[in-house]
Amino acid sequence: MNRLKLKQKLEEFFMEDIGDHDLSSDFLFSQDQYGRMTFSSKAGGVFCGASIIEEGFHLLDPAVRTHLHFRDGDDLAKGDCISTMEGPMVSLLKGERVILNLIQRMSGIATLTKQASHLLDSEKTRICDTRKTTPGLRFFEKYAVRTGGGFNHRNGLYDAVMLKDNHIALFGSITQAVDHVKKNIGHMVKIEVETETEAQVIEAVEAGVDCIMFDNRTPAEIKCFMKHVPPFITTEASGGITLEKVPEFRGLDLDYLSLGFLTHSAKALDISARAVSMKEEVQ
Amino acid sequence: MNRLKLKQKLEEFFMEDIGDHDLSSDFLFSQDQYGRMTFSSKAGGVFCGASIIEEGFHLLDPAVRTHLHFRDGDDLAKGDCISTMEGPMVSLLKGERVILNLIQRMSGIATLTKQASHLLDSEKTRICDTRKTTPGLRFFEKYAVRTGGGFNHRNGLYDAVMLKDNHIALFGSITQAVDHVKKNIGHMVKIEVETETEAQVIEAVEAGVDCIMFDNRTPAEIKCFMKHVPPFITTEASGGITLEKVPEFRGLDLDYLSLGFLTHSAKALDISARAVSMKEEVQ
Amino acid sequence: MNRLKLKQKLEEFFMEDIGDHDLSSDFLFSQDQYGRMTFSSKAGGVFCGASIIEEGFHLLDPAVRTHLHFRDGDDLAKGDCISTMEGPMVSLLKGERVILNLIQRMSGIATLTKQASHLLDSEKTRICDTRKTTPGLRFFEKYAVRTGGGFNHRNGLYDAVMLKDNHIALFGSITQAVDHVKKNIGHMVKIEVETETEAQVIEAVEAGVDCIMFDNRTPAEIKCFMKHVPPFITTEASGGITLEKVPEFRGLDLDYLSLGFLTHSAKALDISARAVSMKEEVQ
Amino acid sequence: MNRLKLKQKLEEFFMEDIGDHDLSSDFLFSQDQYGRMTFSSKAGGVFCGASIIEEGFHLLDPAVRTHLHFRDGDDLAKGDCISTMEGPMVSLLKGERVILNLIQRMSGIATLTKQASHLLDSEKTRICDTRKTTPGLRFFEKYAVRTGGGFNHRNGLYDAVMLKDNHIALFGSITQAVDHVKKNIGHMVKIEVETETEAQVIEAVEAGVDCIMFDNRTPAEIKCFMKHVPPFITTEASGGITLEKVPEFRGLDLDYLSLGFLTHSAKALDISARAVSMKEEVQ
Amino acid sequence: MNRLKLKQKLEEFFMEDIGDHDLSSDFLFSQDQYGRMTFSSKAGGVFCGASIIEEGFHLLDPAVRTHLHFRDGDDLAKGDCISTMEGPMVSLLKGERVILNLIQRMSGIATLTKQASHLLDSEKTRICDTRKTTPGLRFFEKYAVRTGGGFNHRNGLYDAVMLKDNHIALFGSITQAVDHVKKNIGHMVKIEVETETEAQVIEAVEAGVDCIMFDNRTPAEIKCFMKHVPPFITTEASGGITLEKVPEFRGLDLDYLSLGFLTHSAKALDISARAVSMKEEVQ
Amino acid sequence: MNRLKLKQKLEEFFMEDIGDHDLSSDFLFSQDQYGRMTFSSKAGGVFCGASIIEEGFHLLDPAVRTHLHFRDGDDLAKGDCISTMEGPMVSLLKGERVILNLIQRMSGIATLTKQASHLLDSEKTRICDTRKTTPGLRFFEKYAVRTGGGFNHRNGLYDAVMLKDNHIALFGSITQAVDHVKKNIGHMVKIEVETETEAQVIEAVEAGVDCIMFDNRTPAEIKCFMKHVPPFITTEASGGITLEKVPEFRGLDLDYLSLGFLTHSAKALDISARAVSMKEEVQ
Repeated sequence: MNRLKLKQKLEEFFMEDIGDHDLSSDFLFSQDQYGRMTFSSKAGGVFCGASIIEEGFHLLDPAVRTHLHFRDGDDLAKGDCISTMEGPMVSLLKGERVILNLIQRMSGIATLTKQASHLLDSEKTRICDTRKTTPGLRFFEKYAVRTGGGFNHRNGLYDAVMLKDNHIALFGSITQAVDHVKKNIGHMVKIEVETETEAQVIEAVEAGVDCIMFDNRTPAEIKCFMKHVPPFITTEASGGITLEKVPEFRGLDLDYLSLGFLTHSAKALDISARAVSMKEEVQ
Repeated sequence: MNRLKLKQKLEEFFMEDIGDHDLSSDFLFSQDQYGRMTFSSKAGGVFCGASIIEEGFHLLDPAVRTHLHFRDGDDLAKGDCISTMEGPMVSLLKGERVILNLIQRMSGIATLTKQASHLLDSEKTRICDTRKTTPGLRFFEKYAVRTGGGFNHRNGLYDAVMLKDNHIALFGSITQAVDHVKKNIGHMVKIEVETETEAQVIEAVEAGVDCIMFDNRTPAEIKCFMKHVPPFITTEASGGITLEKVPEFRGLDLDYLSLGFLTHSAKALDISARAVSMKEEVQ
Repeated sequence: MNRLKLKQKLEEFFMEDIGDHDLSSDFLFSQDQYGRMTFSSKAGGVFCGASIIEEGFHLLDPAVRTHLHFRDGDDLAKGDCISTMEGPMVSLLKGERVILNLIQRMSGIATLTKQASHLLDSEKTRICDTRKTTPGLRFFEKYAVRTGGGFNHRNGLYDAVMLKDNHIALFGSITQAVDHVKKNIGHMVKIEVETETEAQVIEAVEAGVDCIMFDNRTPAEIKCFMKHVPPFITTEASGGITLEKVPEFRGLDLDYLSLGFLTHSAKALDISARAVSMKEEVQ
Repeated sequence: MNRLKLKQKLEEFFMEDIGDHDLSSDFLFSQDQYGRMTFSSKAGGVFCGASIIEEGFHLLDPAVRTHLHFRDGDDLAKGDCISTMEGPMVSLLKGERVILNLIQRMSGIATLTKQASHLLDSEKTRICDTRKTTPGLRFFEKYAVRTGGGFNHRNGLYDAVMLKDNHIALFGSITQAVDHVKKNIGHMVKIEVETETEAQVIEAVEAGVDCIMFDNRTPAEIKCFMKHVPPFITTEASGGITLEKVPEFRGLDLDYLSLGFLTHSAKALDISARAVSMKEEVQ
Repeated sequence: MNRLKLKQKLEEFFMEDIGDHDLSSDFLFSQDQYGRMTFSSKAGGVFCGASIIEEGFHLLDPAVRTHLHFRDGDDLAKGDCISTMEGPMVSLLKGERVILNLIQRMSGIATLTKQASHLLDSEKTRICDTRKTTPGLRFFEKYAVRTGGGFNHRNGLYDAVMLKDNHIALFGSITQAVDHVKKNIGHMVKIEVETETEAQVIEAVEAGVDCIMFDNRTPAEIKCFMKHVPPFITTEASGGITLEKVPEFRGLDLDYLSLGFLTHSAKALDISARAVSMKEEVQ
Repeated sequence: MNRLKLKQKLEEFFMEDIGDHDLSSDFLFSQDQYGRMTFSSKAGGVFCGASIIEEGFHLLDPAVRTHLHFRDGDDLAKGDCISTMEGPMVSLLKGERVILNLIQRMSGIATLTKQASHLLDSEKTRICDTRKTTPGLRFFEKYAVRTGGGFNHRNGLYDAVMLKDNHIALFGSITQAVDHVKKNIGHMVKIEVETETEAQVIEAVEAGVDCIMFDNRTPAEIKCFMKHVPPFITTEASGGITLEKVPEFRGLDLDYLSLGFLTHSAKALDISARAVSMKEEVQ
């Protein structure tokens, strides 16, 4: 993770929640009243967000010390204590909600990714994400997918070529579109094409793309299509695959299964905070 | 909605996805190749995000004209065409994903809010949201809750006082905490207190708060607690209420039921885009 | 105060004054020439701005150590030494003006607020501010009002409802406007209505608002109006009240007196800086 | 004025006041309810802020049309109608307060500057400002001084050299400091030196500075000092000059009188807004 | 080009040069004095920057109309008139320098790229850029390389893997490093490895990378290395290649020649501005 | 240098290169693998950028310790080791390119400036820069010119008046333009006029400007023009002067020679990085 970006984002998120001040805590507590806060899991899942907890509280108040009891990717059981933070009560209370909102979401995505992996249960096929992420949170959500054992598809429109049905229909054909792109794009960019028919798969192979995506195809169709794809071209199935349907893709020789629901429909993992006062005033 | 904020946010979201350029579309299409794109619902739900579509495409390219066929809050059936956009193909393709990501999420929240309202089926009790929103998206998610017929709880730490268990435990008592706050806070700020026992409810009433929240209480407990609360104090039930449990709160005389899952665990409403070329080149 | 916001604002203010460099100090002094600077009051007043001095110099140069001899809200007599800063001469000279500009203004507002309080001399009625603050400085000016013993009215258009003459005239009536707002706004938002006649006061009471403001009314009129207002509705007098007129509002049973001049026409408290060289070069 | 900067600043100011939405107007009025708002002076003074009104409302809502009846620098009598704005009621109400706050402050400064000019009543001596401006508003306040017939001193630490008592004491002498600066600074930067004694004035003249400032000196002292200053060096009196003392500086052969109070202690000029509905719905 | 990014950057650049105002033009000319300005080439080269001229002047002042006589990539002869701008004199003068600075630099890079291409004179080998760009200008400089007929290497650290000597030495070996990366990185990212010896080339081929870079190797060495590289792996020569040395790489079967000097040492193409007054006042 | 601006700029530059993460280093190395990196000059020149190295690595990772072996302005011979950085390998590799890009450019400008100074070889005439800087980098490039022994012309349009041919032609005459400016501009701003003929020089002298610039004039013409300029007016030659032509200006009594090529066409000084692993893991 780019730490400079992490800090900029966390600062933006704190500003959104705190505004000019915390009307509840700022008037009740002074900076020298210390407390201890713990984050605990209220359900089983995969933890994701260690650096959010550390950098988040540090950004709000360098006097807060954070102890992490789990690392990103670790399995959490219901009741596990994830981290302990000690410092000024007012800062612990001020940061709690924003940090929880973020790590609950990230842990939810990591958990769902791991679940999908288990359901797929394949040595060959990898789970990957899509661009169907929450606006402004792609940085965090793609990290969460990796934490859950998944892989990242392209990061945005700027780091890989993906020719979709609309591109191909409008430009004329896969062959023409791929040729045109290759004339303009350098050697460090991968080219993927979306296909829906056997003919398109064959055309894509001949056009010399790096990856072929089977869009909204059944496992049976994919099996048939794959016969035309040489091993040095990466294959990917995508489109409308729900968690329940994931196991149907087991046993295919696919390289990637891309799942939009990992990021657009994950449920937050339930994590709660509890605080106690620390009699001793520190520093 | 504050239009200046809407534009700032949309600009941030487009920058996240587009970066320096759209490697797929920028090299395939020129600015004078026009197309028509439609957004259609692939499932039933409540539409939310009209201004995102309009402002979003306009921000990317003032040459895009948007026609909306539904308004925020309208019910969508599977297959409904939500909007039609006409303009440079390259701009339609560039904006599609970001705008879909946002309106799918907002429509998902609006749909879930309306669902919760129907399940509750109460003339008196209103559904409201919490601060458990996606970091950076509170502006959009609170709007989506209103669009689905729900109400907004406080916007952040800065616009209302909420004394939670941690505040009260650390400060001493509800009475002391409320007194202290009232000495420092002006007349335009509401004060709510979280309660878990009958004694706390009674103490809160006597402390003269504006709202009392029953935290993680059963409908039966709430019924019992409510007897102590005069009508001019607002009541709210909160904490761990899932969609399935919502109907249990029907028939109580409660003012508000606040539901974290509306924003932290909503599933995106499935909306898809389809594009066709427009032979005539417009300018 | 939200420290993240404080730092962002101070950084903006330093950039405004320093630009690319300090043409006077950057070429005269090196980083290892140390000095001691003191801020002293040249007139009596209420001090406000402790954290501005501390965070301000720290932001410019972590090598500067600040010692505060007064706290926010303390009375200053002419000649009092407010703070001592030790560190690189070049950083002390660079930060001096911006920090003085800010604390002089804040102390001026705090002083004026305390003066108004003394003139009012009421056990019941509180002094509060308005939205007539300097653009970009509301965060600091509202804090200064609190420091002077005053209270904050709403922070902006986003955290409370205030129905003014224009709203009411345009919407039809107080009753209609309040009803409409109540149908759309949640329970954590206060509603205040501006009134100018006895009939409006009565209408506002019946509409069930939280606060009633008497706009540009004489103390005599207010006395008469107050008879219609039950104790659980907050009352506020506002509009065109100068410092000289404040005592006329003593003895009324009013809850709040809101004074625009506290922020739009306060004179800066005169505070000056003096620097001496420190022979020893520290590191 | 740099229009790009004007727009950035106005956007920042609107965001401060509006936040996520205008709770009062956004729920009462729709975009197609039109109104007419007028700004009128409630006291005599000098108008300043025409472009703030025009750009401000335009930024909030391009549907608002603004008609200005006065130009910057014009004299306003009590009751004069400054401008008329027509457009969506909701946008007029949303922008009113921020724009008034800014133009009231700017007009207050312009008025005070003109007043000081009249009191000084000199053909030769010009009134100028200082760096004692409100943090974040220097761009506006320096413009207001010019509008009132005054002149701008340096804009910040970056555009001119000003050697103050602290610089000179710490560096050794005026001669040494000026020599050192001249060795490092190019030909497009003016050099001014603060002096308190006749000997310092003589030293400054010999050092070849562009401007000499007489710091906290009486008119009699200045008269005496000026004898040593050749006509091609600019002279300036500064330090602790109140509005009342300005006339004492009449008749001296001074070039500039710099007055900190113009910006740090100006009272806002009272300007009020009134709105009426426009039956016809436009656009 | 991402137009939103273009506008953000141009706004930043104008703010850098204009600051609070243009002391020379803002006081001399009013908004209704119109003029016509032309940009002309004072040397032969490749034009680059059409959208900078159009968007730049439009951003400063929508009243300026721009007519372009050349398109990006066109050859310019000495004396060619590139564009004509008509509008308020004050805006033309204000924008001139920033826009020239940018297009001179971009045209300089495009010209140098085309020159290198001609010197190389190869049907197979493409010229490409590096990350040795001017900080903050990569967006513009990579565009200029494409305009000159070159290709873009990776955009930054985020869109492709490049294992350099330091990575390999520190991680152990090419094989280990590539294996490790492949376990963590998705299918849309290309992997390139820097090699200096024949053994490394063979190791890289066996590790299954997408591209192999020959770092600081002579054409003779490269010829020898290439025998080990199968056609489906892209080859690139890089490191210390000056313009003079480019022709030495002709005739090799290389895919790419990457040249740092294109962006870090290009000379600006000389373009000058001339303005005339337009008697008729428009608008 | 304004350190706050330095940090903002460096942060912007790192974000441009790193984006969400460093795909090569972030997956290979953990935070506790330490290394040592050195920057060495591969050619002779003038070093510029000490604070960029120090602040740059510190910003990326406070665990990196930087040791500088040269100071800004020092001469570098080929092979000189400029600095040693020790810290987490991943942070050294991540920061290397951006920091090199910046200091190579700055050292290139400093080297070229010193070269021009040596070629001019004058006791009287100083070398200065222009506004022909790289957009966004003026802060760094003007510093580099000073480091090379040159001087800064005005910083932008905001800190000095420069009346060019276009201004004069459009306003009428030098006399009129200078008079007009003097009526509006304060005493801390220098006024320079561009001249092309003897008559213009005479007119400028009589108009009482601070500096006269001879635009695109031959040394012979300048010699002739200078006879009309009294010693208290600064003289400057400018326009189309290449490095080769600089010596022709030796021996004239000129104050300044301004050279656009210093910043718009400098070649980067070649500086390279080398890294070794540190077995001991620190901290």
